[in-house]
Amino acid sequence: MSNEINVRIVSPITTKGFRKDSDFDIIRNSDLNISHSQIEIGPASIETEFDEAMCQPDTILKIIDAENEGCDAAVIDCMGDPGLKGARECVTIPVVGPCETAMHYASMLGHKFTVLTVLERTKPLIENLSKIYGVSSKLASATSVDIPVLELEKDLDHTLKQMTNKAIQSIEKDNADVIIFGCTGMLGCADTIENNLKEKGYNVPVIDPIPLAVNSAYVLAKLKLSQSKKCYPYPPEKGMVGFEKPKLKAVN
Amino acid sequence: MSNEINVRIVSPITTKGFRKDSDFDIIRNSDLNISHSQIEIGPASIETEFDEAMCQPDTILKIIDAENEGCDAAVIDCMGDPGLKGARECVTIPVVGPCETAMHYASMLGHKFTVLTVLERTKPLIENLSKIYGVSSKLASATSVDIPVLELEKDLDHTLKQMTNKAIQSIEKDNADVIIFGCTGMLGCADTIENNLKEKGYNVPVIDPIPLAVNSAYVLAKLKLSQSKKCYPYPPEKGMVGFEKPKLKAVN
Amino acid sequence: MSNEINVRIVSPITTKGFRKDSDFDIIRNSDLNISHSQIEIGPASIETEFDEAMCQPDTILKIIDAENEGCDAAVIDCMGDPGLKGARECVTIPVVGPCETAMHYASMLGHKFTVLTVLERTKPLIENLSKIYGVSSKLASATSVDIPVLELEKDLDHTLKQMTNKAIQSIEKDNADVIIFGCTGMLGCADTIENNLKEKGYNVPVIDPIPLAVNSAYVLAKLKLSQSKKCYPYPPEKGMVGFEKPKLKAVN
Amino acid sequence: MSNEINVRIVSPITTKGFRKDSDFDIIRNSDLNISHSQIEIGPASIETEFDEAMCQPDTILKIIDAENEGCDAAVIDCMGDPGLKGARECVTIPVVGPCETAMHYASMLGHKFTVLTVLERTKPLIENLSKIYGVSSKLASATSVDIPVLELEKDLDHTLKQMTNKAIQSIEKDNADVIIFGCTGMLGCADTIENNLKEKGYNVPVIDPIPLAVNSAYVLAKLKLSQSKKCYPYPPEKGMVGFEKPKLKAVN
Amino acid sequence: MSNEINVRIVSPITTKGFRKDSDFDIIRNSDLNISHSQIEIGPASIETEFDEAMCQPDTILKIIDAENEGCDAAVIDCMGDPGLKGARECVTIPVVGPCETAMHYASMLGHKFTVLTVLERTKPLIENLSKIYGVSSKLASATSVDIPVLELEKDLDHTLKQMTNKAIQSIEKDNADVIIFGCTGMLGCADTIENNLKEKGYNVPVIDPIPLAVNSAYVLAKLKLSQSKKCYPYPPEKGMVGFEKPKLKAVN
Amino acid sequence: MSNEINVRIVSPITTKGFRKDSDFDIIRNSDLNISHSQIEIGPASIETEFDEAMCQPDTILKIIDAENEGCDAAVIDCMGDPGLKGARECVTIPVVGPCETAMHYASMLGHKFTVLTVLERTKPLIENLSKIYGVSSKLASATSVDIPVLELEKDLDHTLKQMTNKAIQSIEKDNADVIIFGCTGMLGCADTIENNLKEKGYNVPVIDPIPLAVNSAYVLAKLKLSQSKKCYPYPPEKGMVGFEKPKLKAVN
Repeated sequence: MSNEINVRIVSPITTKGFRKDSDFDIIRNSDLNISHSQIEIGPASIETEFDEAMCQPDTILKIIDAENEGCDAAVIDCMGDPGLKGARECVTIPVVGPCETAMHYASMLGHKFTVLTVLERTKPLIENLSKIYGVSSKLASATSVDIPVLELEKDLDHTLKQMTNKAIQSIEKDNADVIIFGCTGMLGCADTIENNLKEKGYNVPVIDPIPLAVNSAYVLAKLKLSQSKKCYPYPPEKGMVGFEKPKLKAVN
Repeated sequence: MSNEINVRIVSPITTKGFRKDSDFDIIRNSDLNISHSQIEIGPASIETEFDEAMCQPDTILKIIDAENEGCDAAVIDCMGDPGLKGARECVTIPVVGPCETAMHYASMLGHKFTVLTVLERTKPLIENLSKIYGVSSKLASATSVDIPVLELEKDLDHTLKQMTNKAIQSIEKDNADVIIFGCTGMLGCADTIENNLKEKGYNVPVIDPIPLAVNSAYVLAKLKLSQSKKCYPYPPEKGMVGFEKPKLKAVN
Repeated sequence: MSNEINVRIVSPITTKGFRKDSDFDIIRNSDLNISHSQIEIGPASIETEFDEAMCQPDTILKIIDAENEGCDAAVIDCMGDPGLKGARECVTIPVVGPCETAMHYASMLGHKFTVLTVLERTKPLIENLSKIYGVSSKLASATSVDIPVLELEKDLDHTLKQMTNKAIQSIEKDNADVIIFGCTGMLGCADTIENNLKEKGYNVPVIDPIPLAVNSAYVLAKLKLSQSKKCYPYPPEKGMVGFEKPKLKAVN
Repeated sequence: MSNEINVRIVSPITTKGFRKDSDFDIIRNSDLNISHSQIEIGPASIETEFDEAMCQPDTILKIIDAENEGCDAAVIDCMGDPGLKGARECVTIPVVGPCETAMHYASMLGHKFTVLTVLERTKPLIENLSKIYGVSSKLASATSVDIPVLELEKDLDHTLKQMTNKAIQSIEKDNADVIIFGCTGMLGCADTIENNLKEKGYNVPVIDPIPLAVNSAYVLAKLKLSQSKKCYPYPPEKGMVGFEKPKLKAVN
Repeated sequence: MSNEINVRIVSPITTKGFRKDSDFDIIRNSDLNISHSQIEIGPASIETEFDEAMCQPDTILKIIDAENEGCDAAVIDCMGDPGLKGARECVTIPVVGPCETAMHYASMLGHKFTVLTVLERTKPLIENLSKIYGVSSKLASATSVDIPVLELEKDLDHTLKQMTNKAIQSIEKDNADVIIFGCTGMLGCADTIENNLKEKGYNVPVIDPIPLAVNSAYVLAKLKLSQSKKCYPYPPEKGMVGFEKPKLKAVN
Repeated sequence: MSNEINVRIVSPITTKGFRKDSDFDIIRNSDLNISHSQIEIGPASIETEFDEAMCQPDTILKIIDAENEGCDAAVIDCMGDPGLKGARECVTIPVVGPCETAMHYASMLGHKFTVLTVLERTKPLIENLSKIYGVSSKLASATSVDIPVLELEKDLDHTLKQMTNKAIQSIEKDNADVIIFGCTGMLGCADTIENNLKEKGYNVPVIDPIPLAVNSAYVLAKLKLSQSKKCYPYPPEKGMVGFEKPKLKAVN
C-alpha cells in the first residue's frame, strides 16, 4: 500500500499553457505526487482586486473537485491566495495558500521579510493579507518589479535583473532579512536571485512560494492536520444561481 | 436642474423578494434618490466565506452597471462588504460598504463597539474586516443571534428578543458602547433595539448600517469625494472567461 | 414644519474676523443650516499642546450653549479636536471633531492617508490622535508646510505651493493615498490642491475637514445618532471656580 | 551648598483642604524637598473628561509658576495627567505625570497591570492614556471602586475593602501582576492593600502613584534629564484672552 | 546516494531517560532520519525563566555539534525554544523551535489558537514569545494543566483529562480554533485529545509540536532554506570562560 | 541606623578590568551605595544572541549572591538585559535592566526614541526587547556606530563622533526625540553627545542607561517596590548539573 501524498495545485487563471505539468517536477519526489488543474471561469491573470474577485468562485469549485477526486491537500497557485477561506469551508483536506505559508515561514527565517510583487498596485493587498494572517509586524515592505504577470517571461533577463535590484533595495533600505516572491509566476527563479544577492554580499533566503506551499501541504496531510472546522465549518446547503452547486464530500 | 444625488443599492444575493423597493423609503428624502438592483449569479443568502466569494463577481458587475446608468454612488447591501475593493477599482463613483462605514462611525460614537451578527461562524470574518479597515482596537466583540439570514423575519419577536439580549450581554461583558447590526437583513430594527436597551438603563446608539451607508455615500457624492485611484486604479483590460466583460466608463 | 438640521460650528480661537459667516456658504444647503460661534477665553490660534489646553474650557461651554440654543449638532473648528470628549459628556446632540471624522473617512477612501499640518511640532499630536481614534495603522505620515495658522493667508500662493509639494512628497515617499488638511484654516483649498496633484499624475482625494465634519454631523442628526452616553455620561454637578457653571440641558 | 532637589506638586482641583502639606511627609527625605500648590480656576474634583478639560489651563500656569519659583521638577497631582503635554512645552524642568510614571514602572514590575480607578466612567480615559503612553499591551484592565473622589475618605473602611476586592478580581480574572491606584486621592493606602492581598495569597506590588512620580521627578532632576524640547518646543508668543499671559522662564 | 534528511533533536534538559529514541519512531520515515542528543550542563526540566536561562549554553553547543556531525537541521526539544536565536547565529543548517513553528502553523489552521502549558507561571513566557514571533494577534490564550513536566506521565489518565478539560475551556471561553501542546513532554497525546474533543462536538486540530517541528525542519533542509545570515550572522571569535569554545563549521 | 540603599551592579562579561569601581563614582551619593561584581563563566563581551545566552547563567547566580550578601537591588550591566527575567524569579529584591528602564523613561521624555547600539546585528534584538517591554510603538529606530564593545575606547574621539553623527541621523530621519545609549560600555558619554547635539540645534535628552537604572533601582528599593511574585514566582527546587545550585534566600 502506498504512503504517497497527493497534492493538487489549482491555478486560478484561465490563460492556457501558462503552467506546464513539468513546471512542478522540481517539487515532486518519491512520496509526493502532484496533479494540476486550472479554472475555466475567470480572468486571464491576477493583478488586481477585481481579478481576485472574479477568479474565486471557480477556484473554490476546483478545490472541491480535488477533494472528490481523492487528493490529500490543495494548493492555490496565486500569491493573493484567492478563495482560500471559502475553499477551507467546503473541504476537509488542508487548503494551503502560498502567500500565507511564505509569510509564516519567512517570519521564522528572519526578523523581517519583503514581498517582491509584480505591480505597485498589489502592495496594499499584500499589506492587508499580512494583517489578516497576523504577521504585519514582520513585514519589512512590499515592493514591485513593475512587470505584468503575463510578461514576466518575455524578457527573463530584465525580469531577473529587476528582481535582484528590488531585493537589494529592500535589504538595504527596509531591513529585509528574507525575500518572498510575490507572484507564483516567478516560480523557479529563487536560486538565481539568491546567488545574485550572495554576489553582492547578502546571504538571505529567497522563498519561492509554490514549492514551499506544496511541501507544507504535504506535511499537513502526513500529520493529518487540516484547517479547524470550528472556524471553517461546512457551508449550509442553499440555492445557488449560475454556478454548479458544490458537491461537498463531507456532507454527502 | 436637480441637485439630487442618486445612490444605487446592490443586493449581493439571488433570493427574489427579500428586498422590496419600499424598504428604503425610510432613507429617501428630497435630494437623495435611491435605486436598487440585485445580482443574478450567486448564492441565495450570505452567511459564509464561500457565499462571500460566490457573490462577488456579479456584485462588481452590477456596480459597474450602476455607474454606467448614471448613479452617483453605490452601496453594497451586505455586512461582509463583498466585492468592495474590486468594485472600487472598476468605477469612479464612490463605492460604500455598510460594514466599513458602520465600524468607522461606531469608532467615533463610542470607545468600543460590538457587531451583532447572524451566526457564530461570521465572527472571524468581522474581526478580519476590522483589521483591514484599521479599527480592530475599537472592536469590543462580535456576537451572534444564531438565526440564519433568511429566517430573521420568520419569528420577528424572537429575533428582536435575541438581538436585545445579545446587545445587553455585549454592553455588560464586553464593554460595548455602540451596537452595530451585523446583517443588513436586520434593516429597520434599530429603534426597537435602542428602546429595549433604554428600558434596561443603557443609553447606547444602535447603528442600522444601510441607512448610514447610504447617507455616507450621499455625503461623499455631494462633496465630490471618492476612493483614491492611487490604491484603487482601474484594472487593465484582459481576457475574461465565463463573465460578461466589464464595460468600464472611465476607460471607454 | 421644517426638516432643517441646524449645525453649530464653534471656533476655539479668540482672534476676531478669522472666520466670516460667508466662509461656510459652500457647505450650506436647503436642509442644512449653519450657525457659528467663537470662544471668548483662550488663545489667538491653536498650534501647540498649550493652546489646545487653554482653548478647551470655553469651547465646551460654547457647545453647551449650542445645545441650549436648539442646535442639532456641533462641530469643533480645529484639527486638534480640542474639547471633543469633554463636550460629548455635557450634551446630548452629536459633537463632531473634524480630525476624527477626516481620519475615519480617509481610512475608507484609501489604504493610507497623510495629514498635512501647519507646523512640524503638531506631528506627534496627530499621531497620538490617530492612536486614540483607533486608526494609527492607516496613518501614512503627518507632514507640515511650516507656516503658522494666522499666516496661512498672508501669501496664499506660497501656501498652496507648499501644500502641493508636501502632498506630493507624502504620496511618493510615504505611500499616502489620501490627503487630509491638518488645519481648518486651510478651508476651501481642496479643489486647488486636488487639481495640482492631478496635473502631476496623482488622482487622490483631498479632504477639507470642515465641510466633511459638518456633513457628517448632518447625517448623525438626521439618523438620530449621537455619542454613546455609556462612555460619555453627563458630568455630575460639582463646584467650579472661575468659569460659569455649565447649564446642562439634559439635567435641567 | 545644598544638593537638595525641589519638587513641586500641583493639585489640579479647587477644593480647599483636600491635600494637607503633611500628606507628603512620607515622601520627603534629606535631599528631596517637596512644595505644594493648587489651581484657583477649575473644578472641585476630577472625575470626567469635562473636569480634565476645565482644570488644564490653571494647572499649566501653576507649573510655569513652579519653574519661575525655582523648583527643579513638577508633578501633577491627578491620575488623568491633565495639562501634562501643554506644561512640558512651557517649561524646561521635567514635568511628571503620575499615571504615565506608574504605567511605565508597572510595565517593568510585571507582565500586565491593572488600574484601579474611582468611577466606571474613567475606564476609557485610562485605556486611551495607555495607548498614547505606548503601553496598551501591558494593560490588563481598568476597573473601578465606584466611589466619587471626594467621598473616598467618608467611609475609609468601605473604600479599602472595595479596593481590595477589585484588586483581587483583576488578579484572578484579568491576570494582573501589578495594581496601580487610579486616583491620587488614594494616597497612602498602598501598604494596606498590599497586605490584604498577601493575606489572600497574592504577592503583587501595589503602586501609589504620587510617591513614585515624585521620586521619578527627583531622579530626572538629579540626572539633569527632562522632556525633549524637540517634541515639546516652547509655545510661540501670541494673544491670550481671559488667562494671565504665561511668563516663560526660557523665553524671558 | 541517499537523499535522506538528517534531523537532530536536542533535548535541553539533563534528566536521563526522559526521552527514549523510540519516542521519535512515529515521526521517522523513509527519507527522514532522526538522531537525538541531550545537554549535559543545565536543569533537570524546564518550567521557569530561570531554567530557560540555565539550559541555553549547552543547548547551543549541542546544536553546533549537530552541524559538525553532518546533520541537515536541528530541532530544540522544548516549547520555550531556549537557545533558538543564539544557535541560529552559530550554524548554517536551519534551527527550528517547536513553539515558533507550532504558533505559525496554528495561525494558518485557524483564526486563533490556544497554547496548553504545564504550569500557570509559563503563561507570560508564551505571550512574550508570540509577540517576538509576530503572531500575538492570533493567540487566543495560554492556559495550563497545572502539572510539573516530570510528573506529566505519573498519572497519565489525569493528565489527559486535564488537557481535555482545559482545551474545551479555551475553545468555549477564549474562542480557540486550534490547540497547541505547550510542553514537548506531551508528545504523542494529540490523537487522544483530538478524539476527546470530537466526542464533545469540537472538530479542532491539535498540534503536537515536535512532529510538526521535525517535519518543518525536513522541508527547510529539502528546499535548502535556512535562517537569514543577515539577522543571524556568525558570532565573532572572542574569549569564553567556563564553556568549551564553540567550533563553528562555517568559520573554520 | 543607616537609610542607605545598597545597589549591586553585575557585569555579565568575563573581561577583567573593563569596569573600574571608580566608573560608578558619578552615580554614588550620600544614601546610595554601589557595589560591583562580574561573572566568572561566560563571554568576554556581549554583542550577539550567542553571547547573551552564554552569559545568563552566571549573571543570575551573581544576582542571587547579591541578595544573599544584603544588597537592596541589583542592576544588570548590559543593554541586552541578559538574565533579567530568570533573576527576577530567584530573588526578592528588585532586579533592574538598563535597557528596559531606559526605554520606559525615554517613552516619557519624548514621543519617540532611538537606541544607538554598537553593531548593526543587535538591531533586531533591540526591536524584540521593545516588543516584550511593551513600548515598540515608541521606538523610532535602532541604529549602530559599527564599533565592537571592547574597541569603543580605543579611539574615543572617533567613537564620540560616530555617536553624534548617528544620533543626528536618527533625529532627522527617524524623528527621534530622545537618544538612548545602546551599550553600557558608552557609560559617561551622555554630556558630550548632548552638547554636540545642542551645537547642531537639537535639544534632546541623551540617556546613559546605567546611572538611570541604578537610580531607578534606588527608587524601587526606597519605596519597597519589587517585581511581582505573581509573574516571577520562585523556581521550584530541582536537579541542576554543571552549575552550583542556587541558594535562594526566600526559600531557605
